[in-house]
Amino acid sequence: MKEEDAEKIASTLEKILLEFEQGKVSPEGPFEDVHSFVEAKLAEDLPSLAGNLRIARSRNDLVAADLRLFLKEAIGQVARAVILLQEVLLCLARDHKDVALPGYTHLQHAQPILLSHHLLAYFQMLNRDLSRFAQALAETDVSPLGAGALGGTSWPIDPEYTAQLLGFSRVFENSLDAVSDRDFVIQFHGAASILAMHLSRFSEELILWSTAEFGFIELADEMCTGSSLMPQKKNPDLPELVRGKSGRVFGNLMGVLTVMKALPLAYNKDLQEDKESLFDTVDTVLGCLDAMRAVLSSVKVNKKRMETNLSPFLVATDLADELVKAGHKFSEAHELVGKMVQYCLDHGKRLTRLSPDELSRFSPNAGSLKPGKLTPRASLARKGSRGSTRMGSVEDGIKNAEVILRKNQKTWES
Amino acid sequence: MKEEDAEKIASTLEKILLEFEQGKVSPEGPFEDVHSFVEAKLAEDLPSLAGNLRIARSRNDLVAADLRLFLKEAIGQVARAVILLQEVLLCLARDHKDVALPGYTHLQHAQPILLSHHLLAYFQMLNRDLSRFAQALAETDVSPLGAGALGGTSWPIDPEYTAQLLGFSRVFENSLDAVSDRDFVIQFHGAASILAMHLSRFSEELILWSTAEFGFIELADEMCTGSSLMPQKKNPDLPELVRGKSGRVFGNLMGVLTVMKALPLAYNKDLQEDKESLFDTVDTVLGCLDAMRAVLSSVKVNKKRMETNLSPFLVATDLADELVKAGHKFSEAHELVGKMVQYCLDHGKRLTRLSPDELSRFSPNAGSLKPGKLTPRASLARKGSRGSTRMGSVEDGIKNAEVILRKNQKTWES
Amino acid sequence: MKEEDAEKIASTLEKILLEFEQGKVSPEGPFEDVHSFVEAKLAEDLPSLAGNLRIARSRNDLVAADLRLFLKEAIGQVARAVILLQEVLLCLARDHKDVALPGYTHLQHAQPILLSHHLLAYFQMLNRDLSRFAQALAETDVSPLGAGALGGTSWPIDPEYTAQLLGFSRVFENSLDAVSDRDFVIQFHGAASILAMHLSRFSEELILWSTAEFGFIELADEMCTGSSLMPQKKNPDLPELVRGKSGRVFGNLMGVLTVMKALPLAYNKDLQEDKESLFDTVDTVLGCLDAMRAVLSSVKVNKKRMETNLSPFLVATDLADELVKAGHKFSEAHELVGKMVQYCLDHGKRLTRLSPDELSRFSPNAGSLKPGKLTPRASLARKGSRGSTRMGSVEDGIKNAEVILRKNQKTWES
Amino acid sequence: MKEEDAEKIASTLEKILLEFEQGKVSPEGPFEDVHSFVEAKLAEDLPSLAGNLRIARSRNDLVAADLRLFLKEAIGQVARAVILLQEVLLCLARDHKDVALPGYTHLQHAQPILLSHHLLAYFQMLNRDLSRFAQALAETDVSPLGAGALGGTSWPIDPEYTAQLLGFSRVFENSLDAVSDRDFVIQFHGAASILAMHLSRFSEELILWSTAEFGFIELADEMCTGSSLMPQKKNPDLPELVRGKSGRVFGNLMGVLTVMKALPLAYNKDLQEDKESLFDTVDTVLGCLDAMRAVLSSVKVNKKRMETNLSPFLVATDLADELVKAGHKFSEAHELVGKMVQYCLDHGKRLTRLSPDELSRFSPNAGSLKPGKLTPRASLARKGSRGSTRMGSVEDGIKNAEVILRKNQKTWES
Repeated sequence: MKEEDAEKIASTLEKILLEFEQGKVSPEGPFEDVHSFVEAKLAEDLPSLAGNLRIARSRNDLVAADLRLFLKEAIGQVARAVILLQEVLLCLARDHKDVALPGYTHLQHAQPILLSHHLLAYFQMLNRDLSRFAQALAETDVSPLGAGALGGTSWPIDPEYTAQLLGFSRVFENSLDAVSDRDFVIQFHGAASILAMHLSRFSEELILWSTAEFGFIELADEMCTGSSLMPQKKNPDLPELVRGKSGRVFGNLMGVLTVMKALPLAYNKDLQEDKESLFDTVDTVLGCLDAMRAVLSSVKVNKKRMETNLSPFLVATDLADELVKAGHKFSEAHELVGKMVQYCLDHGKRLTRLSPDELSRFSPNAGSLKPGKLTPRASLARKGSRGSTRMGSVEDGIKNAEVILRKNQKTWES
Repeated sequence: MKEEDAEKIASTLEKILLEFEQGKVSPEGPFEDVHSFVEAKLAEDLPSLAGNLRIARSRNDLVAADLRLFLKEAIGQVARAVILLQEVLLCLARDHKDVALPGYTHLQHAQPILLSHHLLAYFQMLNRDLSRFAQALAETDVSPLGAGALGGTSWPIDPEYTAQLLGFSRVFENSLDAVSDRDFVIQFHGAASILAMHLSRFSEELILWSTAEFGFIELADEMCTGSSLMPQKKNPDLPELVRGKSGRVFGNLMGVLTVMKALPLAYNKDLQEDKESLFDTVDTVLGCLDAMRAVLSSVKVNKKRMETNLSPFLVATDLADELVKAGHKFSEAHELVGKMVQYCLDHGKRLTRLSPDELSRFSPNAGSLKPGKLTPRASLARKGSRGSTRMGSVEDGIKNAEVILRKNQKTWES
Repeated sequence: MKEEDAEKIASTLEKILLEFEQGKVSPEGPFEDVHSFVEAKLAEDLPSLAGNLRIARSRNDLVAADLRLFLKEAIGQVARAVILLQEVLLCLARDHKDVALPGYTHLQHAQPILLSHHLLAYFQMLNRDLSRFAQALAETDVSPLGAGALGGTSWPIDPEYTAQLLGFSRVFENSLDAVSDRDFVIQFHGAASILAMHLSRFSEELILWSTAEFGFIELADEMCTGSSLMPQKKNPDLPELVRGKSGRVFGNLMGVLTVMKALPLAYNKDLQEDKESLFDTVDTVLGCLDAMRAVLSSVKVNKKRMETNLSPFLVATDLADELVKAGHKFSEAHELVGKMVQYCLDHGKRLTRLSPDELSRFSPNAGSLKPGKLTPRASLARKGSRGSTRMGSVEDGIKNAEVILRKNQKTWES
Repeated sequence: MKEEDAEKIASTLEKILLEFEQGKVSPEGPFEDVHSFVEAKLAEDLPSLAGNLRIARSRNDLVAADLRLFLKEAIGQVARAVILLQEVLLCLARDHKDVALPGYTHLQHAQPILLSHHLLAYFQMLNRDLSRFAQALAETDVSPLGAGALGGTSWPIDPEYTAQLLGFSRVFENSLDAVSDRDFVIQFHGAASILAMHLSRFSEELILWSTAEFGFIELADEMCTGSSLMPQKKNPDLPELVRGKSGRVFGNLMGVLTVMKALPLAYNKDLQEDKESLFDTVDTVLGCLDAMRAVLSSVKVNKKRMETNLSPFLVATDLADELVKAGHKFSEAHELVGKMVQYCLDHGKRLTRLSPDELSRFSPNAGSLKPGKLTPRASLARKGSRGSTRMGSVEDGIKNAEVILRKNQKTWES
């Protein structure tokens, strides 16, 4: 093909793109796919040249390239939406730095924690998600063009140049692999599934915290719907939807793994099934991230209720620590406090109100303890280690998160 | 606790470890878990100190640390097994560098390819698997010790020091996250699922190639079983098992995603379900990798049958390329060769045997073509581009693979 | 083979079975599978006859028959465990017939309900599970013996007779299908997955109801574990485990579906992967059913707390109904009560304490209402329809459940 | 509400339905869902009555009823499409009653079988699918109307009457269960997954049989696509797509199981996620059934190629049976034939051409055998048992299938 013919083709293709962007032409219609559409459009202007568009390429490497270009952009969008959610979490953590609430294990009161610490846990999860999306992006960022149908091409092309023009960082290593590889799709589904799982956990907590029984937060009216029947209802629809949508994200992952199972090389039509579920997962996680951001940007924290719920038993661990310092080994101390807790339950007393007299009945060493000083707040203050729920550690965590956030924003800016 | 007491505990723990390694003691028995067992053993020698083993730690951060230590080692084993399989593939590719066979798309003959090229496609897949295992390892290599039950600890410990002693590269950032994070488990399951999918694809091909109809390879007798009923049977059991085992690996991934869905923070007993399926997937992929290595180390390639099956229609693309060079645009050339193929089928002719006279009936430009020179071998030689199935490209691919292999071996040496 | 030889084989096989049951012999050892073991044992006594055991059968129809026999028994066990759980639910419902608690939609207070009504909802779910297990059983209860390796046998056997001896209700219709069909396995996995899902929902509620915030129930100490660190903890381990185990049940279903995907006829070694996950799911659901039964048999219902939590807003629907009777159309009534609820929230009032004066400010028709009569109890009493939460309906539900239970017990008695 | 008002509402609703069917009105627009749309339309004509449409119902029981009505109809469509495919299979079996081909286990030649027998295996699978769809239908055919939001209603309604008007066979038993039960959705997904798995198996075989190497069938041109690059290609696109679409069906099942996991009673917004994947699975299996029907209606069976591929070793089992009749026990006979097969492979002989002299070298008893009579056709004729691959059995199978088909058609006629 002559260079001037190639230039004619190139400029006509640009014209078609422009017309598409202006809404003048559309791939809807009797075309097998977008590539047939483009060739047909080209043939309108360049009937004697359009057929050459297929030189040195095949639909097999084309569709792989299209899918990779789509996903590269989509991963960027998802990552930026994750960062926006990190921002909101960080904001919320800063604004509620010193709000204490019960920390739960097994959904039972365990130890007092700071709300900001809780929020930063999700910040960290999202940060791991980001690193998984970066890995998926690197996997996706490989040009398959030049692999032809399966074996490469006999035309003297330069795959590196094509890759560079399209913004790919790398070129395929093996043509058979290039047209049949969908690892990048699955890796994205995997990263999206873990993200969806994280969001389902946070949603569950927001739903719990919105119950009459917990009452820790109130969702903004716009985030809820009412009931068609019950006028008093305020339903946390958005977190419920986000929780539920983990199902379709997991399902899409399972679907594409099933498609790939036991497929012989190289391209098989089954691979056409890689697309719809990918589009669906991209849309779903973008939607869920937006929803969570909206919910958290407008949530009202019921600080008082959180504090009120800090039951005195939350400091039992601290009391045990004191007993160790007073000479007991830990297992004894643990057992003794267990007995004190039971005593309090039986006698309607608070652990922090036990008198020296009562205490020494459990152990001579216990008489000198000052359980009254072991308030939930004091418990929080005692947690000394890095990454713990003490105010100082959490402040470090916030500073750390700010640094991370700025780095993330820079890495993923569009 | 006094330093000398700590030293007593440490040396007794080492004694217990030694006894365990010598098979003298075992955690089987009435112990809730291995940690209770260790404390009970310790108490036999140090009744007044053993209880202090629990200071500054909780079962929640302990089990997370155990699981991470286990998985770090397991990932190394899996990676080394992947590399051993890469080695065998590379060997096989070198030994069959110039064996040609039909390349398939849609399981239909497409273009001639080199067996070595086909094998290197799997080498590349395994290489991506390795990079995913490296990512999973980095995710796993974080110490959760010091997170306590959920909020950190009030004891003045140094989590960095503990991490260093245990060989962890990093320390947790947030204690709530540290005890409830199982992302590393899911990420490993994800990487293992893609690996299992790759192996299922290769197994499918080995099974196909072993059929009477294909006859491309013969598996070694030790890799097959006979039939209890049919004396002539030689069943490709190992590839079939490997193909089937993708099911349990995918299932384990789905299982742990389900477990994590909508779990509130921090630790919940549901997390106990993270272990068995992880052990199962580790064992399964190790077994599958071993099986594939054994199968490929002993496979007999039926070079002649592969070459015989190279139908002359495999060079149709090359003929179309020639027509383009003779002045046709590609779409015309594609159509013309389609007609020639149909003509050959109707008249029992080979595409490469068409006379100038016959050719010019399709197009005046075609008369000068020399289809006789378009043998499958010639087709292979024409593929010029990097990563293609031409001998030269494949030799580059082999050299490249050798470099990669050495690098992998170094990265993952135990 | 002579009849007397056949009799010798039969009596020796019975001897081997006896020895196995007495623990004298075991299929552990160098045997490919249980069938090889039996043949080897038989050959010890009957060297010249044992080899004839293989006449007219193949491992392919044997393993299918084994698996069906196993599953038939297992389904019976599972069904009986489901019925035992139904019994406990019914008992609990009877014992707490008139305990009222808030009914939730979106985990928000919706309308008052009776605890017995809530428990009967699970009774109904389990009843559907039973009907699915009955369907799986019918599917399983087909003898594949006589299908041989894949095509039947040339020996003059009578598959109906063999089926009858083994207690199968039906005989296979098509030999190729008989050796490659695993629908019955998947159908069981499907039924087990829905059961596991039901149990995960109930577990979630038990966990919620055990929180300090809800406080609706207290699990027996034996059903919980303490904390290694926090002496005051009482963790609902059993419900948590049951909730988590839904993951492995779903995963096993996904695993076997993946195994079967795209397998050509007839038997393939991949089918060997049908067993372990089936055994695991059987054990898992049996364990979960037992656990739930133990938990519910010993649960303490905190009736007072449930009643206390009946917020006055729960009767909002009833108030709206009254407004309709007073002349408003429903949508207006719904809106008006919404405003009243907001008014109460703003002024710290109870909906049931609004004065005629206050009421008429919302609508002239509202002045004559008697909201004070709209207690949660009154609301419960008003629900008139069959299947509703009114005491009368629930009593009918209990009677109905008793009938169902007796029928189930009879159907599934072992 | 007065009876005349109710009649006005009813007739106006019918008018709206008519307008919808005529395309004059559409629920697209600012309506929350179809119920809001209907109420808004009603309010245009009956502003003072429309609001009463909500009396005695809630969106919770409405959406459950809608979904059940949709699925009841969809299951009927799917079942009828299954029956149409059974018809085509039966036709094809009748038309190729006596075509023999190699039967495979482990994809290795095992014994000769009849193509009609092979096709009837799929007929049987589809018949089990039908019975699962009938079970799913029975599960779906329950009216939830009257359950209200969760607890029933205080309006004096008659759920039986509503159910009857809408064509439901049964009424819900428990209102809480009625609004939160989605078992019927999952049961349908399960049945559809097994069907999709069956179709993936058949597709795999059609793809294999279409290869140059097998060459057993030729798909009609309209069922295939060509290649954009390789003019000679004829790709079995439809079976490939059907095989791949098993992925989305399995994925949808996994998705909805995940959604339901650990959801507390009663309705939660997560349940909104039950719809899209259900619609998708209905459309997918309908499409796959249509595609398979089209493919099989137009497939060309290459009878000659199938027969040619009947290798003489396929009769090895028959030869072993003969040896048993000649006095050997089966295990000996099995071993002897194994040696004969090896001898034939080594000396390039056919098993059926061994001379008495050669035979007696393996065993004195073998000399009198007539292996020449053991043709594949003779082998087929010998299979005597019911359900086997002998012509007589297959003819019975066809007659049986005809009866079944007529019964199915009657059961599922629309």
